[in-house]
Amino acid sequence: MIAGEQRVRVELGDARSYDVVIGGDAVAAVQGLGARTYAVVFDYAVAELAERIITALGDRCVMTYGVESGEDIKSVAIAQELWDLMAEARVDRDAVLVAIGGGTVTDLGGFAAATYARGIKWCAIPTTLLAAVDAAVGGKTAINLYAGKNLVGVIHHPAFVAIDPAVFATLDERDLAAGLAEAVKTACVADPELFDELERELPRALACDPDVLATIVARCVAAKARIVGLDEHDRTDVRAVLNFGHTVGHALENTCGYGELRHGEAVALGMRVALALSRTRGLAAGDAARIDALIRSVPVPDLGDVDVDAVIAATASDKKRKEGRVRFILLRGIGVTSIVDDVDEAELREAMRALT
Amino acid sequence: MIAGEQRVRVELGDARSYDVVIGGDAVAAVQGLGARTYAVVFDYAVAELAERIITALGDRCVMTYGVESGEDIKSVAIAQELWDLMAEARVDRDAVLVAIGGGTVTDLGGFAAATYARGIKWCAIPTTLLAAVDAAVGGKTAINLYAGKNLVGVIHHPAFVAIDPAVFATLDERDLAAGLAEAVKTACVADPELFDELERELPRALACDPDVLATIVARCVAAKARIVGLDEHDRTDVRAVLNFGHTVGHALENTCGYGELRHGEAVALGMRVALALSRTRGLAAGDAARIDALIRSVPVPDLGDVDVDAVIAATASDKKRKEGRVRFILLRGIGVTSIVDDVDEAELREAMRALT
Repeated sequence: MIAGEQRVRVELGDARSYDVVIGGDAVAAVQGLGARTYAVVFDYAVAELAERIITALGDRCVMTYGVESGEDIKSVAIAQELWDLMAEARVDRDAVLVAIGGGTVTDLGGFAAATYARGIKWCAIPTTLLAAVDAAVGGKTAINLYAGKNLVGVIHHPAFVAIDPAVFATLDERDLAAGLAEAVKTACVADPELFDELERELPRALACDPDVLATIVARCVAAKARIVGLDEHDRTDVRAVLNFGHTVGHALENTCGYGELRHGEAVALGMRVALALSRTRGLAAGDAARIDALIRSVPVPDLGDVDVDAVIAATASDKKRKEGRVRFILLRGIGVTSIVDDVDEAELREAMRALT
Repeated sequence: MIAGEQRVRVELGDARSYDVVIGGDAVAAVQGLGARTYAVVFDYAVAELAERIITALGDRCVMTYGVESGEDIKSVAIAQELWDLMAEARVDRDAVLVAIGGGTVTDLGGFAAATYARGIKWCAIPTTLLAAVDAAVGGKTAINLYAGKNLVGVIHHPAFVAIDPAVFATLDERDLAAGLAEAVKTACVADPELFDELERELPRALACDPDVLATIVARCVAAKARIVGLDEHDRTDVRAVLNFGHTVGHALENTCGYGELRHGEAVALGMRVALALSRTRGLAAGDAARIDALIRSVPVPDLGDVDVDAVIAATASDKKRKEGRVRFILLRGIGVTSIVDDVDEAELREAMRALT
């Protein structure tokens, strides 16, 4: 049995503050926004849920746009198609865009909402575990360029986020593991209690126990909401800690080709490298074995031969670099981070042995 | 002789507040931002000014992008090219984008800055009178869709705006008139003193007197800064008053093909229609003749036969419509507006006789 509705407030200090509702009635929440018109962007994987929302909206839904989720859809061409359809359907400034699906769908839908008519309201209904624990909180919206992921985007917070843990039952094993990798990340950088929980419950989570997943999602969302509230625009090192595992993770995604490796899987691998860097520098000493064990308990596909040179080159184009230097989030222990920008190529190459 | 430097503060209530500097040293201002890297988007029409800034920046300028100003460049394709070049040049989150040129160049450059890496700093150096009096203040950035102008965009305020009235001497007569049309608009909706000034000085302004132009620009910027400070996100009717003449203006631009009619010219024509609507409704009675005379003293090209049906159809896709209704800004008198959304087709058709 799934626990009742849980609400986590994302406090932004002004009227843009919003709630993440876990286990509530998404259809009622969308209708509750009371807009005259809606545009719905949805993932074919959850067409049934989308259909329920579209039916409930009736005439007020002036545009629907179904996509096959995946990094492919976060392109300029798809964004343009979506903008053109919105204009054609005469979506106006008071309309609400509803994005239903995995993180790529909420990223795309959020970006379209952020940029159409200089920003319209939107709400996110993440339907993958990864999107629920990671992409849905923080207001980051984005599309990709040839040069890298998420290079184009805007911070545009949704009016609310609704998560139904029951939908995770439809995920395949890899998608579930990819989501749990981001939960492990959040635990490592910001939540020792979640870390303990994951050490105990990861097997049940991997078996898709809805109660366990609801608890994990709620803790991840609360941790992320706390961090985003402190650093909304990702301008200080507070929010940067959420990039643990992402420097090499993004480079792996970029090098292996988007779609080959799921984002969470890439992050799981990136965390191995970041932990290896932490160890080399004598950080994380006491907790290193536990952290390593938890990271490695998330299943990832066999990469075969990784082109280490290509991955190293790809880290250099990471969006998160600051003043031209590539940054890594390292761990001093569970929940304690250290940000460095002086990792040289030899040190990175050595740490990348952790991938195998 | 041009009067010395004038500064107008755009007060946004937080750290994003910024100055518009009229007649100051733009090169020094750009350097004063002290970024490690800069990207420069410039208008070929002012290549000399761009060259001075690029030279002064030296190695810190990692990317330059020259464009022929005009609505054509506000396309998704050009935005994508610009994003890709920025990524290729490894423009990072701490970089500053400098946009030098007419309003289409600052709109495009501002949009790229607003959306690249979820928003980087930018500064605007408007070099046409239209951009100086209108596009440079307010933080509106945008590109166009097939369905209409400025349908995609973000509010993203620059770090500063620098205007050198001396560059207006390079403008052709039509561009100067187009800029003065927006100044007339600002006077009509928000500044009776500027209205008096324009009644007296429009001939000298049309003859490109730099002192007169500097005074007009400073007053327009101050009026717009006041309005934007009250309604940054264009969510109340405060900022909406700046759209006087724009409902039909945008429709005319859209119908005649962008480039045929300059934006300011279209607004001048749109103001005639909006004033005709005001008269029909018994508004603007006392001031109507003066307003009409001032609007008509701005030269506009002969439109030939206007396809009235097409223009009326195009007004229906205006971005400014609210709750699905097309809105018009009418005048009750000089500096006093009235916003209506109940103009029917017959009334609009009748008012459009003012175009001829």
